[in-house]
Amino acid sequence: MTSFATVSAFEAALADLRAANADAADAARARQQQLTKPLGSLGRLEEIAIFFAGWQGRERPAIDRARTVIFAGNHGVTVHGVSAYPASVTAQMVANFQAGGAAINALSTVAGLELRVVPLDLDRPTADFTTAPAMTVEECLRALNAGAAAVEEGLDLLVLGEMGIGNSTAAAALCARSYATEAAYWVGPGTGVDSEGIGRKTQVIDRTLAWHGDAPCSAFETLRRVGGREIAAIAGAILRARQLAIPVLLDGFICCSAIAPLAADNPAITGHCLAGHCSAEPGHARLLDRLQLAPLLSLDMRLGEGSGAAVAANIVRVALAAHNQMATFAEAAVSGSL
Amino acid sequence: MTSFATVSAFEAALADLRAANADAADAARARQQQLTKPLGSLGRLEEIAIFFAGWQGRERPAIDRARTVIFAGNHGVTVHGVSAYPASVTAQMVANFQAGGAAINALSTVAGLELRVVPLDLDRPTADFTTAPAMTVEECLRALNAGAAAVEEGLDLLVLGEMGIGNSTAAAALCARSYATEAAYWVGPGTGVDSEGIGRKTQVIDRTLAWHGDAPCSAFETLRRVGGREIAAIAGAILRARQLAIPVLLDGFICCSAIAPLAADNPAITGHCLAGHCSAEPGHARLLDRLQLAPLLSLDMRLGEGSGAAVAANIVRVALAAHNQMATFAEAAVSGSL
Repeated sequence: MTSFATVSAFEAALADLRAANADAADAARARQQQLTKPLGSLGRLEEIAIFFAGWQGRERPAIDRARTVIFAGNHGVTVHGVSAYPASVTAQMVANFQAGGAAINALSTVAGLELRVVPLDLDRPTADFTTAPAMTVEECLRALNAGAAAVEEGLDLLVLGEMGIGNSTAAAALCARSYATEAAYWVGPGTGVDSEGIGRKTQVIDRTLAWHGDAPCSAFETLRRVGGREIAAIAGAILRARQLAIPVLLDGFICCSAIAPLAADNPAITGHCLAGHCSAEPGHARLLDRLQLAPLLSLDMRLGEGSGAAVAANIVRVALAAHNQMATFAEAAVSGSL
Repeated sequence: MTSFATVSAFEAALADLRAANADAADAARARQQQLTKPLGSLGRLEEIAIFFAGWQGRERPAIDRARTVIFAGNHGVTVHGVSAYPASVTAQMVANFQAGGAAINALSTVAGLELRVVPLDLDRPTADFTTAPAMTVEECLRALNAGAAAVEEGLDLLVLGEMGIGNSTAAAALCARSYATEAAYWVGPGTGVDSEGIGRKTQVIDRTLAWHGDAPCSAFETLRRVGGREIAAIAGAILRARQLAIPVLLDGFICCSAIAPLAADNPAITGHCLAGHCSAEPGHARLLDRLQLAPLLSLDMRLGEGSGAAVAANIVRVALAAHNQMATFAEAAVSGSL
């Protein structure tokens, strides 16, 4: 099934976002007031429970089936030496995901997340976006739909991650173009370039922004021009999850950069998303601030692969367990509203 | 078995703290360098794995048996109206813990922690410490040993929590006396007093500090004079865990206040402890700063009961899973040291 058959279909979906179930959220909020604890004393755990109630449409939300999806892509821009690692590492890490040896395998297992790995034309990198759009319209639509296809009804939670040597450069370009800001504001070491490498990334993005300067700035065009397949796939998965009212845990800078162009067109797109963590990549905190998303965790992680979001899935499980299992004041015969 | 038969025995134990196993920590550090991720990219998860390796004395630490212990006590100082709740709520919440209806029950279950609840003479509150030591020497020793008795060989992780109406006043007094600072620096709303209540708490602690002004400031004397049974028990549990090389997850402001007088005598006491979270109680961040402990979580929680530490136990499990289950570069045939 193709979720977004045309650019117009994608744009129509982004323009018309469903809302959470306010009655279910209200019921969950009322339940929180009856649980044996001072109101608000579980802090963000209370917010998470109410958030999930709203999106799952039930007073007591649950996570029976949750999935991590990692999209992987390769990037033409790597010819400019923007990464410390050769592009071949993308495919090697995909093989590692598939063999079960990567961090995300262990982290998904602990959090009870099934793991799906979606490599996107790894042998065909996107075009070098300093002198061309990264993808044709067809290629970008295909990536968006590959993302949507990884999301299906019946999932209670979606954790999104990515792998792609060079993609922190694409992420910075997406942010710079989405928010009409300077490249340097968004560029960081990524997986580990030094200060010289950061300078190179910044120059590459400056040239990219100049080359695409007069082109339309719609979500689709920005994704297509300076994104990458795995990033467009994340955007498609986020939008599809919204159509299915599935809550999403976002990972680090690159994962979140996928939502930046969407949010520029319709800020409500973040409504079903939680920021799993704030990574050590400096642009991530800035991006979360623009997206008005407060991260659940801040553990100095900077791996990608959905790793930070997968750790945060444990916090979601904790929040729902407290919400669903605690006794009320009446049940426990504890004095007053504590 | 009595761990600390006399005040001198307690003080000798505090003066002579064992060290972590440096070889095991080094082996874990070397393993982290071989796992298929850029070095350092799992941030604090890497630190946690190395920390546990050191204390458990093995390259691949594990958590097979972990325990939450909640100590509960009542406080004579409640006669001054320092809490929004009647002292009877302490026993009611202990009954709720025992019946399985409290937040810590749900949170311990999710994190795979067995839960032990230790009520300490709830029908006999400590003395009003504005005009007397809270405990006699015998009472304080008994509380320390009750704490130590809740810790036994074979535990891989200890989560510590407390319940006691009025104990945020005792915690603030402990911090003020341990660090020779003003009461107001440490006083906050606790479970929910208003600004008038905060003023009352501050005055009560000012009077307390003045009354005890010339008395010795040893860890034991500070715990005995301005602490409480549950707080002294936490101190005893922390010290006993150190003797057994069991890593400890500390909870919020009150739990951490138990270690403040110990750290004033021997700062190395925090060496086997991780701060599970930073609570919303303003004194907690200040205390963690003095203790030089960086919290794992910051979720605006302010419940006590060990709740924040129990949530953090999930992060520990995640860290050890990544450390133990990930493939090395050699195993996965991924290029170079990523």
